[in-house]
Amino acid sequence: MGLFSKDIATMDDLFVHMLQDIYYAEQQILKALPTMMQKASDPTLKEALKSHLAETQNHVKRVEDVFRMHGAEASGIDCPAIDGILEEADDVVGEADNQAVMDAALIAAAQAVEHYEMTRYGSLIAWAQQLGRNDCAEVLAKNLEEEKAADQKLTKIALSSVNLKAA
Amino acid sequence: MGLFSKDIATMDDLFVHMLQDIYYAEQQILKALPTMMQKASDPTLKEALKSHLAETQNHVKRVEDVFRMHGAEASGIDCPAIDGILEEADDVVGEADNQAVMDAALIAAAQAVEHYEMTRYGSLIAWAQQLGRNDCAEVLAKNLEEEKAADQKLTKIALSSVNLKAA
Repeated sequence: MGLFSKDIATMDDLFVHMLQDIYYAEQQILKALPTMMQKASDPTLKEALKSHLAETQNHVKRVEDVFRMHGAEASGIDCPAIDGILEEADDVVGEADNQAVMDAALIAAAQAVEHYEMTRYGSLIAWAQQLGRNDCAEVLAKNLEEEKAADQKLTKIALSSVNLKAA
Repeated sequence: MGLFSKDIATMDDLFVHMLQDIYYAEQQILKALPTMMQKASDPTLKEALKSHLAETQNHVKRVEDVFRMHGAEASGIDCPAIDGILEEADDVVGEADNQAVMDAALIAAAQAVEHYEMTRYGSLIAWAQQLGRNDCAEVLAKNLEEEKAADQKLTKIALSSVNLKAA
């Protein structure tokens, strides 16, 4: 998040700062998902990543809506957390001997991304409500619900297909 | 995780690799928690971080147990994800004007850590079960349950105390 005391004096500052963090994160995820799709071999996994790419495009727009509703300019800030998470995802290389093992690793990488987003949206929603901005909280809750659903879908794919092939 | 095809050919390799990832992560968290405790001002938050420090010491030991049970040497590997998450936690500086705002930011940082661990333990448990190692899965599930409980406790502290003071 890059918090500095001179910039963050109020809950409102903190809320906008975290919005900037997730805005950057969603954009980085948008760039990373096509590569993850290409690396995946299980068709259900490929499809799940593809449908999450479409959702992620909507997430970016919803975060922009919240910036607008809050009267702040939409902008991102460096977020070393998502950079690190995506760096690990990127390390799952395309030439792994066993495609199913690579799929299992890709699912774990994608779930780490989902969990990061879930925790950030969770904080943002709580802070929006505290600031009396239930309207912002409701928009953010849509993103949170889709991140949770994506995470659960990945768990299902892992347990029903990928891990069985890989083990 | 630093996955390279030449190192990761089987689910067993992937499992050990992820164990090394979480082993490194738990050790970094162990180093970061005392500073987070010092920065916290809400006594309930301070206490929650302190009790999670004691739990984290146990988590490291349990991961070492799983290495041993699996016949692998306990060792860590660089994990840019947890490094990035902790870098963001570290950016919550001590001189924030409003202590309650800083506490809210600290809770968000600690919850990002918990969520990272939850997703990693989730993958490890699924893989251990797939490999027929329910004994390893059971030990790892103890860590997962404590991470989940720590996350829920932080949500409770945020909603019942810190965010109210900060807003």
